[in-house]
Amino acid sequence: MATINDNYLKLKAGYLFPEIGRRVKAYADANPGAPIIRLGIGDVTEPLPEACRLAMVAAVEEMGSRDTFKGYGPEQGYEWLRERIAEHDFKARGCDIDASEIFISDGSKCDCGNILDIFGNDNAIAVTDPVYPVYVDTNVMAGHTGDANENGEYEGFVYLPITAENNFTAQIPTDKKVDLIYLCFPNNPTGATATKEHLQAWVDYAKANGSIIFFDAAYEAYITDPSLPHSIYEIEGARDCAIEFRSFSKNAGFTGTRCALTVVPKTLTGKAADGSDVEIWKLWNRRQSTKFNGVSYIVQRGAEAVYSEAGKAQIQALVNFYMENAAIIREKLTAAGIEVFGGENAPYVWVKTPNGLSSWDFFQKLLETCNVVGTPGSGFGAAGEGYFRISAFNSRENVEEAMRRIVEKFKV
Amino acid sequence: MATINDNYLKLKAGYLFPEIGRRVKAYADANPGAPIIRLGIGDVTEPLPEACRLAMVAAVEEMGSRDTFKGYGPEQGYEWLRERIAEHDFKARGCDIDASEIFISDGSKCDCGNILDIFGNDNAIAVTDPVYPVYVDTNVMAGHTGDANENGEYEGFVYLPITAENNFTAQIPTDKKVDLIYLCFPNNPTGATATKEHLQAWVDYAKANGSIIFFDAAYEAYITDPSLPHSIYEIEGARDCAIEFRSFSKNAGFTGTRCALTVVPKTLTGKAADGSDVEIWKLWNRRQSTKFNGVSYIVQRGAEAVYSEAGKAQIQALVNFYMENAAIIREKLTAAGIEVFGGENAPYVWVKTPNGLSSWDFFQKLLETCNVVGTPGSGFGAAGEGYFRISAFNSRENVEEAMRRIVEKFKV
Repeated sequence: MATINDNYLKLKAGYLFPEIGRRVKAYADANPGAPIIRLGIGDVTEPLPEACRLAMVAAVEEMGSRDTFKGYGPEQGYEWLRERIAEHDFKARGCDIDASEIFISDGSKCDCGNILDIFGNDNAIAVTDPVYPVYVDTNVMAGHTGDANENGEYEGFVYLPITAENNFTAQIPTDKKVDLIYLCFPNNPTGATATKEHLQAWVDYAKANGSIIFFDAAYEAYITDPSLPHSIYEIEGARDCAIEFRSFSKNAGFTGTRCALTVVPKTLTGKAADGSDVEIWKLWNRRQSTKFNGVSYIVQRGAEAVYSEAGKAQIQALVNFYMENAAIIREKLTAAGIEVFGGENAPYVWVKTPNGLSSWDFFQKLLETCNVVGTPGSGFGAAGEGYFRISAFNSRENVEEAMRRIVEKFKV
Repeated sequence: MATINDNYLKLKAGYLFPEIGRRVKAYADANPGAPIIRLGIGDVTEPLPEACRLAMVAAVEEMGSRDTFKGYGPEQGYEWLRERIAEHDFKARGCDIDASEIFISDGSKCDCGNILDIFGNDNAIAVTDPVYPVYVDTNVMAGHTGDANENGEYEGFVYLPITAENNFTAQIPTDKKVDLIYLCFPNNPTGATATKEHLQAWVDYAKANGSIIFFDAAYEAYITDPSLPHSIYEIEGARDCAIEFRSFSKNAGFTGTRCALTVVPKTLTGKAADGSDVEIWKLWNRRQSTKFNGVSYIVQRGAEAVYSEAGKAQIQALVNFYMENAAIIREKLTAAGIEVFGGENAPYVWVKTPNGLSSWDFFQKLLETCNVVGTPGSGFGAAGEGYFRISAFNSRENVEEAMRRIVEKFKV
C-alpha cells in the first residue's frame, strides 16, 4: 500500500499567490471588464533586455548546426556563465567567491526548497515573520515542523518578528539556539534592508554556534544606498557559515525565462551524525548532479549577456524604471495618509493598512473599490497582519492609475 | 550546530556518468589527440529540429515587447502545451489523460527524483537491476535504504533482476509486497521492451496491492514494433496506479534545451497515516507550485512545435536516424562475434562483454584499444555486471568508425 508524505497535510489552504489568483478571478468573473491593475505578485512586466534576447536567438541558431549543437551541459551550469557571475557579482564587490562555488539553476524558489535535501531533520530553523512563504512551506513538507496554530504559525519554527517596532530587523534569538537561519535582504515582503553591522552580528552568531545562514539576495539589484551590502559574502566570516541565493528574475526580468544561482562556499561544513565535519559543497554538488540536469543552454546564454556592457546598461535602466515606480507609490500613498515602509532599496512598498483593517479585508476593499490587487501582509506570516505589500513591478501608466484610484478613495 | 542529511554519506563513489567522464578525461590527458568516439552517455548529437528552433526564436522576440512579454507562467506548464501533449501523446493512443493531469518540467531526471517528496518513508520500493541510477540514488538520499553492500546493492530495496535469463523482463515479486515500483520501457540501459501483457500483469498487481508504478517512458519514441505500448495508460486500470514520466530530450533532442513532463492521473490515491485516501495529483500540484516555477516560456514554445506537422516529421526523421545507427551497431557487433540485445525499439544496444570480461574491464579495453567510450553495465546495478551499454546517439560517421575499430580488434 503506497503511503503519502503526511507532512503535506499540515500545509495551510494553499500557497499565497494561487489564493490571491482565485480571489481575483472570482471578482473578475463577477465583474467582467473591471480594469484590474495587479500590483500583487512580484512579477516583472517590462520586456526582456535586448542584449539577453540577441544572445538567446544566437544560442537557438547554434542549436541548428551539428558543430555548435549543445546536448547535456554541466549540471552546475556552464563555466563561462559562472565565471562572469563570480567576477561581476562577487569579486567586484570584494567577495572571495570562486566560479566553482556557483551553481546555476532554474530558480531561486526551487533552490530555497531543494537546499533542505542535504540537511538533517533535527535542525532548529529560524524564519522571519513575515516571511517569503516558500521557506516555511518547504520545511513543513520536509517534516521539520508540527502543525500550524490558528495564526498559521507552525510548531517547531523559531519565528523572528520583523515589524515597524523593531525597524524590520530580525533580532538574534537569545532563548533558543538556531541551526538554519533564513535571511532575505532587501526583504521580501517588507522592502527592508540590512546594514553590514546587522549582517555581521548574524554571521558572528552563526560562526559561534555552527549555524548556517540561507541568504536570499534575489533583490540585491534594487539597492540604491551605497553603504548597504549586496552579498552576505561582503561580511567577514560569511564563507564559513552562509549559502546565498540569487536570481536573474528581478534584475533582468527572467521570471518567465528562468535562471538563478546558488553560492555554496567550499569552506562551509555541517555536522554528520558521527560528529565529523562534512563539506556542504560536496553534498549540494551530489544533489544537483543526481536530481537536476542543468539550465537550458539557450537561457544560460541569455543570462551571460546580463554581464555584457549593453546588458549591464539595459538592466540598470530596468531597475531604475521599477524604482521610479516605487518612489511614486511611496509618495502617493503617503499623500493619501497611508503609512509606508520599504520601496527605497527594494521593489516592494510595505503598507500599514489604514483604519486598522485586517490584511485580507484591505485586500478585498482595494480589489473591490479600486480594482487594485496587492498582497495581504498576513499571507507572509502572523506578524504581517495589518500590513500589505504593493509591488513596483508594472508599467508607469498602471502604477500612476492605481495610485490615483487609491488616493481618491482613501484620502482623508 | 547545523547537521547534514547523513543518508548522502551512504551513496557510492559518484553518479555513474561523472565517473566515466573522469576516466575518459584521464585517458585523453595521457593520450592527447586520441580520436575518442563517445557512445557512452545517452546524449543526442544531431541539431534541434527546425520547427522547434523557429518557435523558440519567435518566443524570444515576443519577450521583447511589453504586450507579448511573459513573466511567471503556470507552475504546471502552459495549457496550450499540455493540451497538445494530451491530444497527441495520449488521446491519440486511446489513453484517457486530460491536460490538467500533465505537469511540464525541466527534466525527467528531476521529476523521477522529486516525486519521492510526496510519498511516505515507509514504502517498500522495487527497482530493476540493472537500473537507471537516479531511481536508486534519490531513494538513498531520501533515507529509504540502508547501506550498500560490496556489489553496490542497498539494504531495503527489492531488486528485480533483468538479464538474458529472464528475457530482460522484471518478474513480479512473490516473496515481498512492494509499494512503489520503478519500470522503464523501452528500458534504459538494456533497450528491452514490455508487451501489453507484461504491463497488464504489473498494473493488476499494483491495483491489487495499492501500489504505485513509476513508469519512465522517456524512450517511447523509439518503439518501432506497433504491438508495443508507448504509455502505461494504454493498459486497463493504469490510471488508478501509475505515474508516467516523459521527456523531449530523446525524441526532439532537448537534452540541452530542457523540457519534460509527468502525468499524474486525478484518480490516483495514496494512503495517509490515518488510513484515508489522498489524491496524489493534489500533493504533486502543491509540491510543484511551492518548489518549482515552471519551465522557460521560450522552451515551452519549442516543445509545442514538436506537435506541429513540420515538427512531427522532423522528429520522426531524427528518431529514424538514431535507429539506423542502432541497427548498424547491432549488425557490426554481431559480426564481431559479440552478443547483443536491445537496439530494436530503443536507442541502446546492450552488449554481453566478450571473453567474460567485467564491465569496467571491457570499458577500459574499449577506451584504450578502440578509443570508444561506452557505459559499463555494472554501473547500472549488480546484475548489469558482464554487460555494456552502447548508445546509438552519434553521427553516422562516428558510429561506423567506432564499429569498424571494434570489429577489427574483436573479430575472431
